[in-house]
Amino acid sequence: MIDLRVEAEDLRAYAAALLRAVGAAEDSARITADVLVASDLRGHESHGVARLEKYYVRPLQAGLINADAKLTVLHETAATIAFDAMNGLGHPSTKYAMDACIAKARTAGLCIASIRHSNHYGIAAYYAMQALEHDMIGFCCTDAGPLAVPTGGLVGLLGSNPIAFAAPAGLEQPFVLDMATSVVPVGKVEVKARRETPLPAGWAVDAYGNPATDAAAVLNGLSLGQGGGLMPLGGAEAGHKGFGLSAMVDILCGVLAGASSNLGRGYNPGEPTDVGHMVAAIDIAAFCPVDEFKANLDSYIDVLHQQPTAPGVDRVRVAGEPEFEAEQKRLRDGIPLHDGVVTSLRALGGELRVASPF
Amino acid sequence: MIDLRVEAEDLRAYAAALLRAVGAAEDSARITADVLVASDLRGHESHGVARLEKYYVRPLQAGLINADAKLTVLHETAATIAFDAMNGLGHPSTKYAMDACIAKARTAGLCIASIRHSNHYGIAAYYAMQALEHDMIGFCCTDAGPLAVPTGGLVGLLGSNPIAFAAPAGLEQPFVLDMATSVVPVGKVEVKARRETPLPAGWAVDAYGNPATDAAAVLNGLSLGQGGGLMPLGGAEAGHKGFGLSAMVDILCGVLAGASSNLGRGYNPGEPTDVGHMVAAIDIAAFCPVDEFKANLDSYIDVLHQQPTAPGVDRVRVAGEPEFEAEQKRLRDGIPLHDGVVTSLRALGGELRVASPF
Repeated sequence: MIDLRVEAEDLRAYAAALLRAVGAAEDSARITADVLVASDLRGHESHGVARLEKYYVRPLQAGLINADAKLTVLHETAATIAFDAMNGLGHPSTKYAMDACIAKARTAGLCIASIRHSNHYGIAAYYAMQALEHDMIGFCCTDAGPLAVPTGGLVGLLGSNPIAFAAPAGLEQPFVLDMATSVVPVGKVEVKARRETPLPAGWAVDAYGNPATDAAAVLNGLSLGQGGGLMPLGGAEAGHKGFGLSAMVDILCGVLAGASSNLGRGYNPGEPTDVGHMVAAIDIAAFCPVDEFKANLDSYIDVLHQQPTAPGVDRVRVAGEPEFEAEQKRLRDGIPLHDGVVTSLRALGGELRVASPF
Repeated sequence: MIDLRVEAEDLRAYAAALLRAVGAAEDSARITADVLVASDLRGHESHGVARLEKYYVRPLQAGLINADAKLTVLHETAATIAFDAMNGLGHPSTKYAMDACIAKARTAGLCIASIRHSNHYGIAAYYAMQALEHDMIGFCCTDAGPLAVPTGGLVGLLGSNPIAFAAPAGLEQPFVLDMATSVVPVGKVEVKARRETPLPAGWAVDAYGNPATDAAAVLNGLSLGQGGGLMPLGGAEAGHKGFGLSAMVDILCGVLAGASSNLGRGYNPGEPTDVGHMVAAIDIAAFCPVDEFKANLDSYIDVLHQQPTAPGVDRVRVAGEPEFEAEQKRLRDGIPLHDGVVTSLRALGGELRVASPF
C-alpha cells in the first residue's frame, strides 16, 4: 500500500482546525499544529499528527487539558523564569517560555525557564531550535511517562526524558540533537511487536531482570505496571549512564520545575499528566564572536564529514542531518501519512465537522 | 599483594608538595592535590594521584603547562563569564571559575562560565559539587583527547567528553552524576588488555568498523591514530546518542569556549593540550523553595531505593551513591594505592627532594 502524501501547509491547517474545534485558542491551536507537523516533516511520525487525537484532542474534550490556560510567571530573576502552564497544552506553553528565555538571554547572556503543570509537547528539538535564528544555543528537556528500568531494578518507571540541544552553524546545517535517554524509544519496540520479531539484546529486560526478547510481553508489562521495560541508554554495559541522564532530567523538570514527576506515579489515564519542562537559551555573543563560532562549528562538522566510513555508510552524519534531509524531501514531495492515520484523522474531522483536505 | 593504605590528608599534602616543587603556586598546588585525592577517595583511582606525574608534574617541568598562569576574564554579562586559563593547571582554573559562577548565580539566578586554553582537570564531579553547599545545582563538562569513533566512522577522534551534574538532597546524599559519553572509559579497556581478556560486544570497533574484541589492538590503534576505538555511549544500537552528547560537549567546551577542540587534532605530546571546560550553577531558590526541592529530591531517591531489585542487587543506587560509599570507607580505612603508584610516587619524591609520607 502506498501512503497518502499531504502538503505540510494543508496538514498544519487541518490539525489546527481540529484543535480549535475542541476549544483550543487560535494561537495555541496554530503552535501545536506547527510542532506536530514539524515532527512529521523531520521524519519522526511517532511524534506527529498520528498523536493528535489521543494525546491532545480527546484530553481537551475531556477537560484533562485546559483549553483556556494562560501561561503564568511564578518567579523571575535576571536570568531565570519559573512558569506554570496551568495544565494547558505543552506546545504553546513551551514555545512562549522559550521566546521569553531568548529575550532575557539577549541582555543577561543566558536564561533558563522551568514550566510546571504542563502536558506532552511533541518534539523537544522544536523549542531548542527557536534559539537558532537569534544566534543563540537552545536547550530543552522534559519528563515523560514511565518506560525504562533503573539499573539494578525490575520495573520500568523512568521516563524516556528526552534532551534537545541546538547550535547554529554557518554554511553547514545547524547541529540539532534530540534524544531520548532510553536505549530506544518505545515506538521501536511497538514496531517489533507488530512484526513479531525478537528484540535485539540490550533493548529491554523482563520482570525478572533478564534480557527480554519478546516485544509484546515488554509492552504488556509496561502498560500493566507488571515489571520489565526498556533499558536506559547504555544498555547492559552502561545503562547506569542513561539512568543518570534520565534522573537529571527528572530533577530539572520534575523536582526543580515543581511538576509531580512521573516517577513511581504510573499512568493515570483519568488525571492531568502534570508534566514539567526546562528550556534554556545561551547567547553566543556573550562568549565569543558569532561569526567565529559559526565558522568553527562548520570546521568541526567538516572534520566529521571527511572521516573515512564503515562499509555501507556514505558519510558520517552529525545530529540533525538525517532530519534535515527528511524535511527537504517532504517539503518537496509531501508528508507520507500511514493508512491508519489517514482513516482516523478523516473520522475525527467528520465527528468535529471539520473538512479534511485529504 | 596488599595495597598500601594512605590517609587522605597525607596524600593531599604530599601531592601538593610535589606540585610546588615543580613551580606550582601554593593555592594551585593545594587545589590540584585536593581534586586528585577527591577522585581517589571516591573510588576513581584512574583519575587520582596515579596521574600526578604524567599529566601534571612532567608537563609543568617541560613548560607545557604554565605554572604562573592567572585565570583571566575575557568577557562578562549578568549571567555569563568567559575565562581564559592562560594554559594553567585545569584544577584551580575550573575551581575559581565555578566560585565565580556561584557568586553570580546568587543574584542572576544562574550563571555559566566557559574556560579556554586550559588543561586536564581531573574529575568533573568535583566542580559540579562545589554548588551543593550553596543550595545550588552544579554542572560541569570538558572536552578531552581522542577516543571514541563517531557513528558510521572508523577513527576514534571523539573525546570521552564527560558530563557532571550535582543536586543537593535533604536527608539523602546529593545526586552526583559524572559520566563519560563513551560506552566505557578507556581505563576499562586498559584493564582488559593487561588481563588479556576479550572486550565485550559493543565496547569498541576496529579500523574496519567491525566489533573489536582485542583490547591491546584497540589501544594501539588509538595511540597510533591507525583507526578504531571505543564506541560512543549507546554502543551498536544507540551510539549516535553518545556521539551527539560528545559533540554537544565539544560545541560548548571547544567551539563556544574558544578552545581548539581535540577533534581531528590528535595527540601532540610536545604541545599544550588547549582543553576547554564549561561550568554552571543554578540557584534553586530562583525556581522553588530550597526545602521543598530537597524534600522532593529525597522522595524521588526513596522511590528508587524501594524498587524491587534484579537477582544479586541489594538495592537500586542513584548516581553518586557508589562514590559516597567508597569515600566513607576510604576516609575510615585509608586510600589503597597500587604498588606501581607507590613506587613511582616515592621515586618522584626522591627526584624532587620531597619527603614521602609512605
